[in-house]
Amino acid sequence: MSKTIKIGIVGYGNLGKGAVEAIKQTADMELVAVFTRRDPKDLIIDEPNVETVHISNAGDYKDKIDVMLLCGGSATDLPEQTPYFASMFNTVDSFDTHAKIPEFYESVNEAATKANTTAIISVGWDPGLFSINRVLADAILPSGENYTFWGKGLSQGHSDAIRRVEGVKNGVQYTIPSEDAMAKVRSGVNPELSTAEKHERVCYIVLEEGADPARIENEIKTMPNYFADYNTEVHFISEEELKRDHSKAPHGGFVIRGGNTGNGNKQIYEFSLKLDSNPEFTASVLVAYARAAYRLNAEKQYGAKSVFDVAPSYISPRTAEELRRDYL
Amino acid sequence: MSKTIKIGIVGYGNLGKGAVEAIKQTADMELVAVFTRRDPKDLIIDEPNVETVHISNAGDYKDKIDVMLLCGGSATDLPEQTPYFASMFNTVDSFDTHAKIPEFYESVNEAATKANTTAIISVGWDPGLFSINRVLADAILPSGENYTFWGKGLSQGHSDAIRRVEGVKNGVQYTIPSEDAMAKVRSGVNPELSTAEKHERVCYIVLEEGADPARIENEIKTMPNYFADYNTEVHFISEEELKRDHSKAPHGGFVIRGGNTGNGNKQIYEFSLKLDSNPEFTASVLVAYARAAYRLNAEKQYGAKSVFDVAPSYISPRTAEELRRDYL
Repeated sequence: MSKTIKIGIVGYGNLGKGAVEAIKQTADMELVAVFTRRDPKDLIIDEPNVETVHISNAGDYKDKIDVMLLCGGSATDLPEQTPYFASMFNTVDSFDTHAKIPEFYESVNEAATKANTTAIISVGWDPGLFSINRVLADAILPSGENYTFWGKGLSQGHSDAIRRVEGVKNGVQYTIPSEDAMAKVRSGVNPELSTAEKHERVCYIVLEEGADPARIENEIKTMPNYFADYNTEVHFISEEELKRDHSKAPHGGFVIRGGNTGNGNKQIYEFSLKLDSNPEFTASVLVAYARAAYRLNAEKQYGAKSVFDVAPSYISPRTAEELRRDYL
Repeated sequence: MSKTIKIGIVGYGNLGKGAVEAIKQTADMELVAVFTRRDPKDLIIDEPNVETVHISNAGDYKDKIDVMLLCGGSATDLPEQTPYFASMFNTVDSFDTHAKIPEFYESVNEAATKANTTAIISVGWDPGLFSINRVLADAILPSGENYTFWGKGLSQGHSDAIRRVEGVKNGVQYTIPSEDAMAKVRSGVNPELSTAEKHERVCYIVLEEGADPARIENEIKTMPNYFADYNTEVHFISEEELKRDHSKAPHGGFVIRGGNTGNGNKQIYEFSLKLDSNPEFTASVLVAYARAAYRLNAEKQYGAKSVFDVAPSYISPRTAEELRRDYL
């Protein structure tokens, strides 16, 4: 029986909480400690064997933890935290600011290479599983086009925007892939589509007393950047309906490639996720890739890696024999 | 500019022909020769720079070919050919007799390890891309269930079976995933489903003159093993309709995992293919994995491998920087 992989979690927001749950579903991993910038005494974790530790004391855990799951945000936490933790630990993070990935990679790679650690960056579903599928589909069907659709998903930024409209008491916004656009892509004609043509926006609004629904609907539908370019629906509901029907954080999406082979044969490649809980799923992907970070490091594959550098068997708890026999 | 990867193809059936087409779509590979058991003079390949060679002279090409694509059948060709060619060349094959994969792996691994070659076995879509998705989904969502559906696809074995029925002049059979079963699986309830409950069978029959359609329909629907356990539809059409509407070899299918995280949140993972040409798509996957065989061998990763051992970047013609910048 091989030894258990010892895990630490940095940050205890929705993603960190999801990671606690995901680790419980594994047989080969053990959560040792949760690290926080807050006073660790204020962190209530209902796990008797898990320590809560201030982030400044992480260095004391160098010999007690195999992989650190970095569960902070991409805007300000991870650009600092990943290089810092990668200088002491193997790490997995979910850095998702697409435009900044190259510079993020460089800074993490420098820290991890120096420290002989393995740091897998930008893990989750997009970036993550969606990225893997974009690469596989492109490699297999060179003549073709990749399409990524997001949703149905709650968008925090757009929900904030509608709540700032005068007369709106509360509200949420869902991004939904356009059925028409999806059907075109699945037919293999490889259409040109803008992000606005690929997605629709649906708003559920609770009005303040006396507010004018027509004015609010118009203000939302013509809001530049957020809604003006999109096919947008506005629905007015009660506060009770909002609480009852719109309190979860579902998300998901589709990666589709329409490819051509031989004499014009159409080949449609599609990957999709439909998630009740976005943070819990993302955390589950991080936890699976912790296995890979641990194993790559044992093979002396040091430095920053992405999901593109990780073979499927590295994230599975099953043996190579079992995988070939039962999953191939 | 790195050198071109030199490819050989063994076997010139539908799969081998698909491989010729797929190689043309790459910029980093070059087809050197097609090897055949027939008289090479009888092989008409419309490619001026490609040699046709008898299989017994393959040894002369050890220094001229980087990777051999083995395009023979799983029943009798590959169990002999893969170990034989792996003793001289890096290879990629599409061995798909699921039950015999462990022993096939052993015999190929022995030959390849002895010869310092790299042999990637069981490449294609199932086994292949479907296998990768079964493993990723299982690793990420340990609490859940995998489902594989095949179709809509033309089944050669079942088409043969209906053509043996007295009074049937010609006919084809499609395997189709059951809409009901798919809807249940996508809802995340993780039902128990037999292969027969997951699939329906649809037959298109051309009758011989004077044949009794009622008797034939009954004989097909009650045929043990092939149809009796399935929901089966029988349609009678003309020879012209058969030629016009049913002369392609489409295939495809779905891998779906319904998983649970945290406090009962459902997470649905789905991968699917809809293929106009099954052999051309399978060949395209083989060609992409030829890149991986070449690169793994350059890294001295010798022996038999499966798709589980190959990181996504190894099958892509793009650089690591390009992948991180444009695909992550």
